[in-house]
Amino acid sequence: MRQSELFTKTLKEAPKDEVSVNAKFLIRGGFVYKNSAGIYSYLPIGWRVIQKIAGIIREEMNAIGGEEMFMPAMVEKKYLDASGRWDVEIGFEAKGKKEKAANFVLGWTHEEVLAEIASKYISSYEDMPFAAYQIQTKFRNEPRAKSGLLRGREFMMKDLYSFHTSEEDLFRYYDEVKKAYLKIFKRCGLNAIYTTAAGGDFTVSNTHEFQVETAAGEDEVILCRLCGFSENKEIAEHKAGGRCPGCEGGVLEKIKGVEVGNIFPLGTKYSEAFNLKFTTRDGGKEHVVMGSYGIGIGRVMGTIVEVYHDEKGIIWPETVAPFRAHLLQIGEATEDLKKKTSEIYNKLLKVGVEVLYDDREGVSAGEKFADADLLGIPYRLVMSEKTVVQDKVEVKKRDEEKAKLMKLDDLLKLIA
Amino acid sequence: MRQSELFTKTLKEAPKDEVSVNAKFLIRGGFVYKNSAGIYSYLPIGWRVIQKIAGIIREEMNAIGGEEMFMPAMVEKKYLDASGRWDVEIGFEAKGKKEKAANFVLGWTHEEVLAEIASKYISSYEDMPFAAYQIQTKFRNEPRAKSGLLRGREFMMKDLYSFHTSEEDLFRYYDEVKKAYLKIFKRCGLNAIYTTAAGGDFTVSNTHEFQVETAAGEDEVILCRLCGFSENKEIAEHKAGGRCPGCEGGVLEKIKGVEVGNIFPLGTKYSEAFNLKFTTRDGGKEHVVMGSYGIGIGRVMGTIVEVYHDEKGIIWPETVAPFRAHLLQIGEATEDLKKKTSEIYNKLLKVGVEVLYDDREGVSAGEKFADADLLGIPYRLVMSEKTVVQDKVEVKKRDEEKAKLMKLDDLLKLIA
Repeated sequence: MRQSELFTKTLKEAPKDEVSVNAKFLIRGGFVYKNSAGIYSYLPIGWRVIQKIAGIIREEMNAIGGEEMFMPAMVEKKYLDASGRWDVEIGFEAKGKKEKAANFVLGWTHEEVLAEIASKYISSYEDMPFAAYQIQTKFRNEPRAKSGLLRGREFMMKDLYSFHTSEEDLFRYYDEVKKAYLKIFKRCGLNAIYTTAAGGDFTVSNTHEFQVETAAGEDEVILCRLCGFSENKEIAEHKAGGRCPGCEGGVLEKIKGVEVGNIFPLGTKYSEAFNLKFTTRDGGKEHVVMGSYGIGIGRVMGTIVEVYHDEKGIIWPETVAPFRAHLLQIGEATEDLKKKTSEIYNKLLKVGVEVLYDDREGVSAGEKFADADLLGIPYRLVMSEKTVVQDKVEVKKRDEEKAKLMKLDDLLKLIA
Repeated sequence: MRQSELFTKTLKEAPKDEVSVNAKFLIRGGFVYKNSAGIYSYLPIGWRVIQKIAGIIREEMNAIGGEEMFMPAMVEKKYLDASGRWDVEIGFEAKGKKEKAANFVLGWTHEEVLAEIASKYISSYEDMPFAAYQIQTKFRNEPRAKSGLLRGREFMMKDLYSFHTSEEDLFRYYDEVKKAYLKIFKRCGLNAIYTTAAGGDFTVSNTHEFQVETAAGEDEVILCRLCGFSENKEIAEHKAGGRCPGCEGGVLEKIKGVEVGNIFPLGTKYSEAFNLKFTTRDGGKEHVVMGSYGIGIGRVMGTIVEVYHDEKGIIWPETVAPFRAHLLQIGEATEDLKKKTSEIYNKLLKVGVEVLYDDREGVSAGEKFADADLLGIPYRLVMSEKTVVQDKVEVKKRDEEKAKLMKLDDLLKLIA
C-alpha cells in the first residue's frame, strides 16, 4: 500500500507512561494505540502483523485436526456457577445499564462454554477424540498492566480444547499440541522453552508453559541449557546454580521469560460440572477427559518486538512482518523518479510481494530512513535519482548493515 | 472435510424456545449454538459461513480504500462521557469483580474511540480523506432478542468510519459506500433496498438503511416497487396505498424488512466531542466531518436463511455456502465404494473445491439425504454401488429437483 494513504503516522516520542520496549516501538510506529491501561487498538499495520501470526496458528491448529469456531465474549453466570469460577477475581462482570446485578462475566477462558456445547454432541466413545479452537478477544482484570502487549486486560487469544475417552488419549494429543506449539513459535521467530508450571484455576495437576527468554519477561524460570529441563520458579524444587536433575553435567540458571502459550491437562473437572459423559465400548458411562491449550496472540507480537529490535526500531521476522518490502522514493520527486518507482511498486504487487511504498513528498531522506528502521520491514528498497540513472534498486535488509544495488530481475529472484 | 470428523451433528428438533426460521435451521444443522438469549456460538460449519461473508465484505471495503484495524470491546467511560452516550440504555456496563462502579461499556459502536485515535494523526487537510474499518463483536442490550441471528445481544459487525474535510467530500464517499454495500449484499444473494431512516443516537439528519424484504423482518418499510423509493415507516410521511412521491405511476406498499446495514452522515458531532480539527488549505482550523457505516454480519447470515430455505432446510447461495459440494457415500460401505468415493473426494480437494464428505457408516441413505437438505450445500454428489458400476457421480443442486449422472470430468467442469 502507499504510505501516503495510511492514516497512521510514525511518532517521534512514545507516551511517557509506556515503559516497555514493545509498547514504545509499537506505538511510535503506529502499530497499536493505547486506549486504556492494558487495552490497545490494533492500527492497520499492527493488524497485519496479528493476521500473520493468526494465519500461522490456524495452519498448525488445522494440521492437528482443530476445528475453528467462535464462542461468545459474554459468558452467563450459569456457566461459571457450574464450575465454581464465578467469583474468580480476574473476571470482569457485565450487566445491562438498568440491571442491578451482573449476570455475565467477560470470557477470560471458555472451558465451561465448550463443555456445555460438547454435551449436546457427545454421546458415545465413537464421537471422540476431537478438538475445537477459536481466535478471539479475552478479558482479564490484571492488576498490573504495564508491559505493553505482554500483559493486557483485553487481548487476542487462540484457545483450543480437546475431548477424549481416556487420560491416555488426552496425553497422546497433548504431545501433538506441544509439537504444534513449538512449530508455531519457531515459525514466528521465537525459541520457546517447554516449562513445567502450576495449574492455577484450571487444573489440579502440573501444566506446561512455553516461555521465551527476554529481559522484559515477568516470569522467572529455572532452566538447564544443556538438556532443556525447565520449571517455572513458582513451583521449582531446584535452585539456580544447582545441578540439573534432568541430565548429567547441566547447571541450572534462573532466566526471565514471557509465557507465550500454555497447555493444561484438565482431566474431568469440567465434564463433571456439565455432566459430560459418554457410553464406553462395553456400554458403561464415563466422564469425558478434556485438555485446553492457549496462545496469547498479542503477547506473541509484543514478545517478538522484545526479542527483535535495536535502538532504532523493530526488526520483524519475515514470517510475521506487516509487509515484505518497504519501497522508499527519496530525493527530489521528479516525474521520472516517480514513474520508475511506481513501476517497481506495481511489478512487486503483481508477483505477490506485499510492499509498503513510501511515496510521501516533502519528507526528507533521513526521515524516511528513520521511519523504515522504526517500522522494521525486512527488505528496504530505495529509489533515487542515483539508482534510476543506473537502472537499479538499492536493497538493504533490516538486520544487515550494507546496502547493495541490484537489477530489478535479481531483486525479484531474491524476494518474490 | 470428513463429516465423521465434524464434532457437531444435525438435530431432529430445534429448541422449543426458538421461534424464528433462521435459528431453527441453523441450530438443527449445527451452524450455531444458543448460549443465552440473543447470544450464540458459531460452530465450525457456521463459522465457515461467517468467514465467507466477512471475506466478501473485506474485498469490497478494501476496494473503496478502507483500512482494516481492530478496536477494543471494552470502551472506557471517558469516551462515552465526551460524547454524552454513557447512559444510553443499549449499553452493557463492565467492571472488575471487586470494583464498585463500572468504568467501561462494552462497545456497541466505535465513533468515539476512532475519533480519539484519529485526533493523534490528523493535523492538516492533506491527511484526509481516509476510512478505516473493523470486523468485531458488538454488544447491545436488546430488550427482545427472539429472532435468532436477526437481533443479537452479542453479534458480529463490520463498522467503517470515514474522515473528511467537508460535507461535500463526505457525501461523495457516502455514495461510494452505498454502491459497495449494494454490491456486498448482492454477492451474498440479498436484494437490499436503500431506505431513508431516522438518525437515532448517531446523528441529527436522516440516515440510510439497507432493508431486505422478508416476512421475518422486524422493520416496516414504505416502498415503491416501480422506482425504488423507500422510507422506514418510523419516519415515513407517505402511506401504503398512496401515490409514490418519487415517480409517476408508482403505488406505495408496506413491506417487512430486515435492516442488514446502515450508513450515517455524522457531520461534526464526534469531532467536536474529541476536538478533532484540521488546518485548512488557507491556514484556518475546522472540525473534521465524519461518516459511519455498519453491516451486521451475523444478521446477514440469518437473513440469508430467512430468504433461502424450503421446508427441508437451508439453500445457501454459492458465494456464502460453508462448502461448495456435499459428497454422500450411501448404501453398503464396500471397500470398492469407499475407495472410489475417497478418490473423488481427494480429486475435488486437489482442484480447490471445498467439499464436505459424508463418510459416516451405519447411517441410512434417507438420513444422509435429509441432512444434506438441512445443511443446504449447493451441490449434492452421491456415490453408491449403482453409480460406481456406471463410473459416474449422481449430481443434484440443492435448489433443483432432478439429479443427473455425470462423469467425473464433466462434474469438474461444472463445479471446479
